[in-house]
Amino acid sequence: MARDSTPPHKNRRNACFGCGEANPDGLQLRFRRLGDETPPRVLAKCRIPRRFHGAPGMLHGGIVATLLDEAMAKVNAHVGVTAVTQSLQVTYRRPVPTSRPVEIEGRHVRVRGRYVYNHGEIRLPNGKVLATAKGRFVILPREAVQKILRAND
Amino acid sequence: MARDSTPPHKNRRNACFGCGEANPDGLQLRFRRLGDETPPRVLAKCRIPRRFHGAPGMLHGGIVATLLDEAMAKVNAHVGVTAVTQSLQVTYRRPVPTSRPVEIEGRHVRVRGRYVYNHGEIRLPNGKVLATAKGRFVILPREAVQKILRAND
Repeated sequence: MARDSTPPHKNRRNACFGCGEANPDGLQLRFRRLGDETPPRVLAKCRIPRRFHGAPGMLHGGIVATLLDEAMAKVNAHVGVTAVTQSLQVTYRRPVPTSRPVEIEGRHVRVRGRYVYNHGEIRLPNGKVLATAKGRFVILPREAVQKILRAND
Repeated sequence: MARDSTPPHKNRRNACFGCGEANPDGLQLRFRRLGDETPPRVLAKCRIPRRFHGAPGMLHGGIVATLLDEAMAKVNAHVGVTAVTQSLQVTYRRPVPTSRPVEIEGRHVRVRGRYVYNHGEIRLPNGKVLATAKGRFVILPREAVQKILRAND
C-alpha cells in the first residue's frame, strides 16, 4: 500500500513511513532512477537503523518486506501509473544486517490489464543478494487519483 | 526474520521492532494464544499508530506485512520450534486503517521436514478481512538456537 503519486523528493509534507521526509520515525528511503533504462529501475543506497531489528543485528522480516514494497512502488511513477500493492511475495535468502550499507532495487517487469508487475531486491554493496520480492500492483483509475490528491490538499 | 525463541511477555530486554517491550519506536505487539486449540492460533487486538501509514490514513503495505510476519512467527513457540521466515506472501484485500481497532491472527498450518507453514490474517473487529498471508519458516537446529541465546546473554 505504499503509494507513489507524487515525486518523492518534491513533497515535504509526505509523512509516508517508507519514504516521507516529514516522518522522523520512518525509513526516509530515497530512490533514484538508474539512467533512463527500459524497463525502468530505481535504487536506494542506505543503512537501516538498529531500531528496526527482529533478531539482534538483523532487520525484521517485515521491514525487509517494507523496503521491497517501497522500491517496487517507486518504479511505478516511471511507468506513468499510480498503483497500490495488491500482493507481495518476499523470499528471505540471507539475514539483512542493520546499520550496514545495503542497496535496495526496484525493477519494472510488465503491465498486464489493470496490473503492474515489479521485482525487488536487497543486496550488499558487493552484490550478494539478501532478499528478493515480486509485487503485483493495481492501477488506480485517474478519477480515484484525483480524489486522493484533493483529499490531501 | 521475526524470531520467537522466548515467550513475548517475559523478556523486558527484547527490542524487536515487532514485539519488543524495550523498543519504544516499534509496534510493541502482544499476542495471546487462543485457548489450547490444535492447531494453535494467536491473536493481537490493537490500533497501529498513524506514523506507520503509507497513503494517508492507511497502514503502509510493509507494516501490514510486518504484522502478519509477526503473528505467524509467534505461533511457532506454540508448535515448539524456533524458526525464521523463509518466505512471506501477503495479499492486500482492503486498506488497513491506522489508529483504529484491528485484530491480527496467526494460525499454524503444518510442519513438513525443516519447514513450518503458517497463515496470517488482519481483520476489523466485525470480522471483515483486510489482508491475509502465508508464511514458510525454516526450523533452526537446537545448536543454532543455543548459540543465539548465548550471544544475547
